[in-house]
Amino acid sequence: MEHARYKKEKVVLDTSIFVNPDVRADFGDTPTEAIESFISIAADIPALEFYMPPSIFQELLNFVDEKKISGDFLTLIRQKPPKKHELSTPAFLLYELIEDLRERINKGLRAAEKAVRNVSKGDEKEVIQTLRRNYREALREGIIDSKEDVDLILLAFELDALLVTIDHGAIKWAEKLGVRWLLPNRFKDYLVSYRKRCAAEVSELEES
Amino acid sequence: MEHARYKKEKVVLDTSIFVNPDVRADFGDTPTEAIESFISIAADIPALEFYMPPSIFQELLNFVDEKKISGDFLTLIRQKPPKKHELSTPAFLLYELIEDLRERINKGLRAAEKAVRNVSKGDEKEVIQTLRRNYREALREGIIDSKEDVDLILLAFELDALLVTIDHGAIKWAEKLGVRWLLPNRFKDYLVSYRKRCAAEVSELEES
Repeated sequence: MEHARYKKEKVVLDTSIFVNPDVRADFGDTPTEAIESFISIAADIPALEFYMPPSIFQELLNFVDEKKISGDFLTLIRQKPPKKHELSTPAFLLYELIEDLRERINKGLRAAEKAVRNVSKGDEKEVIQTLRRNYREALREGIIDSKEDVDLILLAFELDALLVTIDHGAIKWAEKLGVRWLLPNRFKDYLVSYRKRCAAEVSELEES
Repeated sequence: MEHARYKKEKVVLDTSIFVNPDVRADFGDTPTEAIESFISIAADIPALEFYMPPSIFQELLNFVDEKKISGDFLTLIRQKPPKKHELSTPAFLLYELIEDLRERINKGLRAAEKAVRNVSKGDEKEVIQTLRRNYREALREGIIDSKEDVDLILLAFELDALLVTIDHGAIKWAEKLGVRWLLPNRFKDYLVSYRKRCAAEVSELEES
């Protein structure tokens, strides 16, 4: 039976805590290790409910062999898409999106023009590589640019959950939508602290 | 006193019926003429309420001397911004926006790469002109890309009004949001028909 004492807290996970080497270190050296280590802590925290959009779970499978993902992971992390046809978002978001985009589009064109002007001075292949890098920076970085990212932010918005991600675009939207967020590099500390609190409450209940 | 007989119908106007030569023809040869001609018809149709976002009105002033805009125009066309901090839009719109954008961003990069590869074969200036055209086509055409456009579509959405515009991006969003729209080249016929109906109803009332 569930204790009414602690309110269930919802957490939406990006793949980064499992696959990004810079932030995964706390959990393990490989994605598979990180998943196992996450399970071993998270399973002891009944007060937390973990969620992941199915589209993000699919992304995870690019890094981990599906056969190596245990059933525990499947019961611990609920795969749920956001209710995209019921949810509404504030209209002012559209203004910010369009304004941001407009600047980025102009920046992308300037990068392209610069590349054209630089061809005579350098190697064509190199110029194209620089162009791709600059263009990507102008038009993709810090922006939500895939439906997987939209899934992630809308699921956290719908569930009023804590979003654990390192994606700058998702964090920007979390700020606009009033969604709590946490960087993955503090996520293990968060889990350990939660586990301690849960254990303390359980032993208090047993004593009383 | 207003007759309860005919329900007031709201119409949101883009600048195109006044400034775009292709669709303005019905109303006049210059923007100023088109405005005068619009006033002369619209003033006789009490059943219609006309609206324009202030940002779109500002755009109109790029084509018309403000001193030549009569007071009648100011009373006939209500300048109103949308309630952007109260309105909500369906979340699925974000998916369509992001997906559309993703394709466009890739197309823009391909146009840029093509330009870089073409420099050796042609004149740099020409290559840049073609690049600008192709890039614009990839990233701007058929997309809402300014806050003025967002004002326009959200105002029509808020007022449940008929949107009169030739902008493909605005029409696409109107379709998604369930906003009625009409191409400006049929707008004069629409007005004339409305005026006839109003006149018929008034004379009926007077006879009864």
